[in-house]
Parts: sequence; C-alpha cells; structure tokens
Amino acid sequence: MSCQEFLIMIKFYYSRLSINARRVWVTLLEKNIEFEPILLKLNGDQFQPDFLKLNPFHHIPVLVDRDFRVFESLAILDYLEAKYPEPSFMPTNAEDIAKVRTIELVTVNELPPASIVLMKEMLDVAVEEQKIVQAKQSMATALQYFEDNLASDKLYFVGEQLTYADIVAGTAVAAIPNLGISLEPYSKVSKWVENLNQRSSWQQTVPSAEEIEKSRAVMKAILQRR
Amino acid sequence: MSCQEFLIMIKFYYSRLSINARRVWVTLLEKNIEFEPILLKLNGDQFQPDFLKLNPFHHIPVLVDRDFRVFESLAILDYLEAKYPEPSFMPTNAEDIAKVRTIELVTVNELPPASIVLMKEMLDVAVEEQKIVQAKQSMATALQYFEDNLASDKLYFVGEQLTYADIVAGTAVAAIPNLGISLEPYSKVSKWVENLNQRSSWQQTVPSAEEIEKSRAVMKAILQRR
Repeated sequence: MSCQEFLIMIKFYYSRLSINARRVWVTLLEKNIEFEPILLKLNGDQFQPDFLKLNPFHHIPVLVDRDFRVFESLAILDYLEAKYPEPSFMPTNAEDIAKVRTIELVTVNELPPASIVLMKEMLDVAVEEQKIVQAKQSMATALQYFEDNLASDKLYFVGEQLTYADIVAGTAVAAIPNLGISLEPYSKVSKWVENLNQRSSWQQTVPSAEEIEKSRAVMKAILQRR
Repeated sequence: MSCQEFLIMIKFYYSRLSINARRVWVTLLEKNIEFEPILLKLNGDQFQPDFLKLNPFHHIPVLVDRDFRVFESLAILDYLEAKYPEPSFMPTNAEDIAKVRTIELVTVNELPPASIVLMKEMLDVAVEEQKIVQAKQSMATALQYFEDNLASDKLYFVGEQLTYADIVAGTAVAAIPNLGISLEPYSKVSKWVENLNQRSSWQQTVPSAEEIEKSRAVMKAILQRR
C-alpha cells in the first residue's frame, strides 16, 4: 500500500463529463471529505474486469471507502450523508424530505431521456422530429417544476440550506444550456443556477468548453449505436 | 367533504398492474396506514387536467396526505418512513443504508428497460434480436447482484428486518417470471421471493392471472407506439 493510499481512504471513480459523477464530486467537496479521484475513460475502462468487480452494471460513479464499495450515485450521496453527516444536505421533516427526494428523482428520471434526444439533434445523429418535440416538452415541464419549487426570496429549494435537491438538480440543470435550451424563461431557476455557480464546489467540477468540445466525437459515436 | 374523506386522510393514486405503485401499496399495508385507493386506468386518466395538477409528469403512483402531495414512488416511500416511522423499513447505519439504496436504485434503473424489451418479445412486438440478448444479460446481472446480496440464513437483504430493499426489489422481482425468465438458477432469490409471497401485503397486492392476461392487449398497443 502506498503512502497516499494509506492516508486517503476514499477512492472516487468518475469521468469529467458525467453528470451522475459530478453530483458525488460536489458532495465530497462540500463535505470536505478527502478523496482520491480515479478518472475513467468511458471508451472501455468501465468494461474492464477490475471495474466490473466494483460495479457489475459498468457505470460510474463508484465510491470505495476503505473496503466498502457503493455504486448508484444517489445511493452514494445517502451513504456519505450517513457516514459524514456534517454539513448535512438532508432536511429532517417529512415534507422537506419528500421535496428533496422528488426533485432528485425528477432530475434522474426526466432529464436524461430528453437530454439524449436533444444531444442527438445537436450532433446531427438521426432522430425523429416527433421525439425532439417531446423532449423539448419534457425539459419545459421539468424546468417549470423546478421553477415552481423555488422561492424568489430563498437561495435554495429548502430555504437557505443547501440540500441534495440543489446538488442533484443543480449539477444537471447547469448542463441544459449546452443542449441549446435557454434557462432565461425560468427566472427563479436562472437565479438559483447563478447562486450555485458561485460555490467553489461547482467551479472546481465544471467541465471546460474545451472538454465539452472534445467529447462530442465520442458522444456522437455512442449515440449512433443506440 | 364526505365523511370518508374526512376520516381517511391519505389518497393513493395507483393502477393494479403498476410495479411502481405496488411498492407504495405494500408499504402502506405494512405500516398499517389507512388510505383511500384511487384506481387510474392508464389509457388516458393520467393525462386529465386534474391528475396533471397532482403530477405534471403524468405518472402514478401519487400520494396525497391531507393537502400534501408527493409523487415519484421512491420519494413517497421516504416520505412515509419519515411521517409514519413505525414499523421502520430503513436501517440506520451507513453501510446498510447504502445497501438498501443501491438495491432500490438497481431495481428501478436496471429492470424496467430490460423488462420492456422482454415484454415486446413476449407480445410479438417488433424488437431486434440483439436487444433481446442484451435484455436477458441485464436481467441475469441484476438477479445475480440480488443473489450475491442475500444470505441463505437470513430472511431479507438486511438480516431479519424487512426494509425498502425487499419492498422495492421484491415487488419487481416477483413479476420477472411473467416475462419468461426463471428465478430457479438463483436459489437465494427464489427462497426470498417465497418468504415475501407469504406476507399478507404481497398477497393483497398481487395482480391475478386474469388481470395480467387482460392487460396484454393494452400493453401491446402501448409498446407498439414506443
């Protein structure tokens, strides 16, 4: 065991452009947890036997804390909250818990299918016109849902406390303009994204324009196979 | 307000064959919570304006507790756990929380895409051979993951305590044989499903063979449009 492995007990398997990984990355930073980042190139690293032992479903992110392994990004967030409770990103009353969970799940269930269609359109991958219309409608419904759940006099979804609702939705919504969808019609969402972008954790984890540009060819090849 | 509405504060919007609804239904029964079931026919009820006010993403289940509305089934489960904590279906230590969450998320992320492909095959809806092979592989990976997380000397995923891991995965895995996939190669999974099937909550919520048979024409029409 190297000296570094001995000192830093948490390994975080991620890729630079993964929104699923970014929500964990932001959480690790916000909770001031020391970790060793392990970058995966998603052109095959995730199917290597050593990685399949960590996650048989070959997805990032994966977190290994000493000898305890967790995958599924939302499960990792709940593990970190239980194991490293300060600062806390989960409220304690039933209604606020419901709000945070619903926003987490709307983000992971509604945004990715629409994003894939809009990414195809953007990268000139064949996609039916009707699916593009549906995807834009889904995005609008989700953004309106977030807008309705923000208050103009509060920083975050649950008042002034940063929660997993902000971390999960905020890292995903920040990427929506890259798909050619403007956040401008949603004034509370726009303001909230600005608030989040001022946090160091957001600034440290945002992919550069160059990284996004370089990823397009890889992404196009993946989308053409779907 | 009618007398019944006054007495029973929780409304549960569901359909008989929805696995997403069944996990909430089982939880309501297991927690001995009184509720008024409101059956939706999924051939249009979910797009009615009154229902869209409850869930703009037009999915069931939805739960309305007095005037508080929750959607997304996993969010409803966490709401119920916080509001009606006894009996509890969430462990308290970080490792067990991670296990329960990962099993919940593997269930909702991995099983449905594979199930849709296998349902198409079963109902003679056009689907590529390669997708069927992939779907069977996904099912096998998920079932093996569940098998690896069960212990032959324990009733449930987290020892003798029923948790949301069992409720979420158990209501989904119980439906896998309907897709022509046998659970027999997975001895611990088979035994665990038998244990769950003996619970009153499972018996009260299982769709009849007749209901499944009657749903096939509707399901086929939906799958042909996808």
